[in-house]
Amino acid sequence: MDFRSDNVAGAAPEVMAALLEANKGDVSSYGADPFSAELDAAFSALFDHECKVFPVATGTAANVLSLACVAPGYGAIYAHQDSHIVVDECNAPEFYTGGAKLVTLPGESGKIDLAALDAQLALGWTGSQHSAQPSAVSITQATEAGTVYSPDEVADIAHRCKAHGLKLHMDGARFANAVAGLNCAPADLTWRAGVDVLSFGATKNGAMAAEAVVFFKPDLAESFLYRRKRGGHLFSKSRYLSVQLLAMLENGLWLRLAREANARARELAEGLGKLPGAKVVWPVQANEVFVQLPTAAAEAMRQRGALFHTWSEADSLYRFVCAFDKTSDDTAALVQAATAALK
Amino acid sequence: MDFRSDNVAGAAPEVMAALLEANKGDVSSYGADPFSAELDAAFSALFDHECKVFPVATGTAANVLSLACVAPGYGAIYAHQDSHIVVDECNAPEFYTGGAKLVTLPGESGKIDLAALDAQLALGWTGSQHSAQPSAVSITQATEAGTVYSPDEVADIAHRCKAHGLKLHMDGARFANAVAGLNCAPADLTWRAGVDVLSFGATKNGAMAAEAVVFFKPDLAESFLYRRKRGGHLFSKSRYLSVQLLAMLENGLWLRLAREANARARELAEGLGKLPGAKVVWPVQANEVFVQLPTAAAEAMRQRGALFHTWSEADSLYRFVCAFDKTSDDTAALVQAATAALK
Amino acid sequence: MDFRSDNVAGAAPEVMAALLEANKGDVSSYGADPFSAELDAAFSALFDHECKVFPVATGTAANVLSLACVAPGYGAIYAHQDSHIVVDECNAPEFYTGGAKLVTLPGESGKIDLAALDAQLALGWTGSQHSAQPSAVSITQATEAGTVYSPDEVADIAHRCKAHGLKLHMDGARFANAVAGLNCAPADLTWRAGVDVLSFGATKNGAMAAEAVVFFKPDLAESFLYRRKRGGHLFSKSRYLSVQLLAMLENGLWLRLAREANARARELAEGLGKLPGAKVVWPVQANEVFVQLPTAAAEAMRQRGALFHTWSEADSLYRFVCAFDKTSDDTAALVQAATAALK
Amino acid sequence: MDFRSDNVAGAAPEVMAALLEANKGDVSSYGADPFSAELDAAFSALFDHECKVFPVATGTAANVLSLACVAPGYGAIYAHQDSHIVVDECNAPEFYTGGAKLVTLPGESGKIDLAALDAQLALGWTGSQHSAQPSAVSITQATEAGTVYSPDEVADIAHRCKAHGLKLHMDGARFANAVAGLNCAPADLTWRAGVDVLSFGATKNGAMAAEAVVFFKPDLAESFLYRRKRGGHLFSKSRYLSVQLLAMLENGLWLRLAREANARARELAEGLGKLPGAKVVWPVQANEVFVQLPTAAAEAMRQRGALFHTWSEADSLYRFVCAFDKTSDDTAALVQAATAALK
Repeated sequence: MDFRSDNVAGAAPEVMAALLEANKGDVSSYGADPFSAELDAAFSALFDHECKVFPVATGTAANVLSLACVAPGYGAIYAHQDSHIVVDECNAPEFYTGGAKLVTLPGESGKIDLAALDAQLALGWTGSQHSAQPSAVSITQATEAGTVYSPDEVADIAHRCKAHGLKLHMDGARFANAVAGLNCAPADLTWRAGVDVLSFGATKNGAMAAEAVVFFKPDLAESFLYRRKRGGHLFSKSRYLSVQLLAMLENGLWLRLAREANARARELAEGLGKLPGAKVVWPVQANEVFVQLPTAAAEAMRQRGALFHTWSEADSLYRFVCAFDKTSDDTAALVQAATAALK
Repeated sequence: MDFRSDNVAGAAPEVMAALLEANKGDVSSYGADPFSAELDAAFSALFDHECKVFPVATGTAANVLSLACVAPGYGAIYAHQDSHIVVDECNAPEFYTGGAKLVTLPGESGKIDLAALDAQLALGWTGSQHSAQPSAVSITQATEAGTVYSPDEVADIAHRCKAHGLKLHMDGARFANAVAGLNCAPADLTWRAGVDVLSFGATKNGAMAAEAVVFFKPDLAESFLYRRKRGGHLFSKSRYLSVQLLAMLENGLWLRLAREANARARELAEGLGKLPGAKVVWPVQANEVFVQLPTAAAEAMRQRGALFHTWSEADSLYRFVCAFDKTSDDTAALVQAATAALK
Repeated sequence: MDFRSDNVAGAAPEVMAALLEANKGDVSSYGADPFSAELDAAFSALFDHECKVFPVATGTAANVLSLACVAPGYGAIYAHQDSHIVVDECNAPEFYTGGAKLVTLPGESGKIDLAALDAQLALGWTGSQHSAQPSAVSITQATEAGTVYSPDEVADIAHRCKAHGLKLHMDGARFANAVAGLNCAPADLTWRAGVDVLSFGATKNGAMAAEAVVFFKPDLAESFLYRRKRGGHLFSKSRYLSVQLLAMLENGLWLRLAREANARARELAEGLGKLPGAKVVWPVQANEVFVQLPTAAAEAMRQRGALFHTWSEADSLYRFVCAFDKTSDDTAALVQAATAALK
Repeated sequence: MDFRSDNVAGAAPEVMAALLEANKGDVSSYGADPFSAELDAAFSALFDHECKVFPVATGTAANVLSLACVAPGYGAIYAHQDSHIVVDECNAPEFYTGGAKLVTLPGESGKIDLAALDAQLALGWTGSQHSAQPSAVSITQATEAGTVYSPDEVADIAHRCKAHGLKLHMDGARFANAVAGLNCAPADLTWRAGVDVLSFGATKNGAMAAEAVVFFKPDLAESFLYRRKRGGHLFSKSRYLSVQLLAMLENGLWLRLAREANARARELAEGLGKLPGAKVVWPVQANEVFVQLPTAAAEAMRQRGALFHTWSEADSLYRFVCAFDKTSDDTAALVQAATAALK
């Protein structure tokens, strides 16, 4: 009953099989292997748009290498105050951009409050030598609260970016879960809505360690190769990164796995939501469920073997994340543990 | 006949098997998995010394995170002018240290010339506010020329470091090949000789993508966790990095593989060395062979399917690297191609 | 009637005279001149404590070089959301620290809200590899709102710093005005209250361009010389920086000038405060006055030649800063303009 | 008899007078003062070309802010191995560029050896993800050896820059001495020869602390304002920087002072050159003289009160620098001391 995160899971069998297959024989290194050569085409097909794609091993690398391509050291990046780049990456965005400032914005259920963003943009910092130069907005999809921005919501932010000369980055560590949750075309949620660059996550969704940085405007990627190498993120045996991504895209595996994870989250939400004393606080639109529980009940669940994160001790708020390989039996067991604990 | 680099090879079967085994079940993430928990003990046993060990995925990451722990942004790091950190890491050392200067030193067959190092240290920059502060020396083992520093040679450099308050880093991307070549104890080549921190390479030697940063003085590692994370090098599914390293250490696999690779290099050197018109220019002490050949002969070999790097066009110098999985048949085929080409 | 800032003023005659005097003859450069040699003793006497002092030319340089000595690139610095280092230094703190994060805190009238600080410190980020490491608090004295922290208020923050292993930096761009306003010993407001390093401002208070970084704990200054040089802030003709600071300290000029400026601000506050339609919003404790005025009245004052900043357009809030050389006639003229405008 | 450097001198009377004059009254700050407003026009007239000009207080700031505009963190900058940016700026170039690599080149008498530059450019690093990207060449005028590049020599380097897509920076800390030495138009030595950006030095030549960054291609300056501010190099009372530069340009003061200094150097060279046992080693083309002397003689001169730098202890090589305000009596006194010492 491990619902602490989707990264407690291993990799999907299809990914492991692809790795074994790719292990055969000698191939060129540093991105010149035949698997890496397929990435641009594979993602361009997926997004119905010409993409420039670079594989890296971690979500933080994907995020901060992306951000470094759209914000200089004297720039400002606007992001939700609870976002991963703000609270969970130990200043990696500042490091890779050479010192850009993350301007934090509030917002309900993990989504940037548009009025707060407008207020920041209205400060008119652009062109003032004293001020960090407004450069980019970064949104998370699905958000840290397990919610998703609709294509229209993304476009609302993108319009503001365009109007003020900013780029729009999407941290898609759980992009698959968002697309699965919205049941929309990947294109609708990204470049059609105005996203410039996407961190396409695969690790949480069943890869071993693989993320794709997807540029929808190739000219933004001009310096990427150099930034990736000087970040230490170019794999010599690059085949192993690329083949994971290809395996995820093959036959829609990425969406199939994400739909499973999302279905488990809905089961959890349903099961926990009707228990007396439990309250699901945010819409369950991806693979995460946030539940308020009496502290004693949470403790009792843990004694029964359930693993999950305390999101806010003050609010008795707990997070349950469903990995791609959780089963309905797993969620049922958790609901049972909760039922017992809440008695 | 791919002798371009040891990174054109795949991973050893033992490593793949370990990855498959580690793929089972849920485990804690971000270094709290049971495999990562074994690293310190495994390497401490290997080196007969208390070590603090951190897995990362690339050699560049290992090198530059190490260097960032021993040199500030206003520091100077002394390294061979042909070393990987100087010519092949796209300013990653400068990036991670916050701007330290790599002071390049000449030296025969890939090894730092001691007189050149002495001349630099004699400048007396320490304490001068105008000057990069002497902070560390970095040596490569085995060197880019396929040679190795003996324990005494390492100690010669280490003594100078100690005398001037510098730390000694070893880029051990091919550390296994060096140990195999010298047939010495890992300890003799590192902490006993005065090395402070080692990039222990596994990728070139049969891992998929795994290197260990090994601190022989734990206090130097104080900031490592934060530097690794802000570099984007902390794996969420950390088990996959650590298990590769454990598999390499298990039953001495790392040395067994390196010995094979070295043996192949000796076969090549012997076979090529006696051909008329071919000259092996540096001692073959690890898994690399550098051979001068008439340009036309090199071209003819390539037409016969041999793959290898041109090391210096001006000198008609070519590099042949033997991966762990090359066979005596492979080297024989290359020698045959050379024989035909040189006729 | 130029009340836009204290930096619209020139330098005090005493400072100019000292510069002329220092201009004579050859002296050693780069800090080895006889004026620079006096700084440590002069400030140690002023603060009744052993100090390590470094002159620089700008307030931003003083702030960010200080901060770089107390916070690493993976660190977090807590500061008021309106502070100069947060909104007016174009990411200089991030640049000089190598990427530290400025965590912004709210607070009435320019002072950090203690509960907000406590909430941040209670997050327990220290030791978590995912999180910027809590490293320092920076407070501004006098604040951007023209208020001052009392010695007790400084100590309240310092206690929290000590309890959590943080350093306390004071941006004293208007430190003289704060000391003059409180009529306390400089020591009481700094090291006795727990301040570790102070940016002692002189430029706004009558110097041409000179600030002193004052370390109350000499060991924190270990890397300062190198950081200053690589920031490009070491003057070759260093005498000109140091002599300005000495002139300010001589016979208490710094306090005399600050008292004048503060007196002018009180005159303004009194004069404007009793006008119908005008409201002084924050206590006037230094040399700045913040007044709410009908927009039309502010406009009318400007047409009469009054110069001042709009602090908040939304709140019709205006800032009036009194330089050291403003006279009672100047303030009377401004009040007269306001009186006329408010009719 | 202080010939240690031109920075042991004070400021020229004309500069002090201009500072006093500029001290009157209130003016806008942060570059919006009337003096700063004149800079672009004044330098554009001087160089017979549209220039974008920014004043800063130190030569290091001028150099590294320039370089940061022409080289990214993953870039390579080619410079002479003895140049100020390489050996005397404590990694400021690396800091401001975000980690660019200074590739050092040899060369007689302070000038870059063209063959060595060609060899570097022939490596073909451009576009290789492993390599620092060739971005700029920086030359020093006059050089650290007191020699000057002729306009043709500058053009020789500039052609190479253009052919490889590099920018050309000139560190003109002693630009005035070079122009005076060559008796050429400032334009001939800069943009007409292919220089993109110039650090125009005034401090060593009689200013208190003022240098101008002069962009001959305005689009290169796009980010300068932000880089200057985040470097802490924007003066609040900016009038004091700008008026120094204007005073230097007025009525050709800068050239008049440089001609004086150069004349003194020639006097020294002549006087010392004919002494038995003394040898002037490099052509005296600016205001510096490098002389080989028996160590004992140098010591004897110092005992007679002569101050000068030991350039190379191994070579018994000494440097004598003539500031703008040295007189023929001063040089005669030094020659006399040398004559006595060499007996």
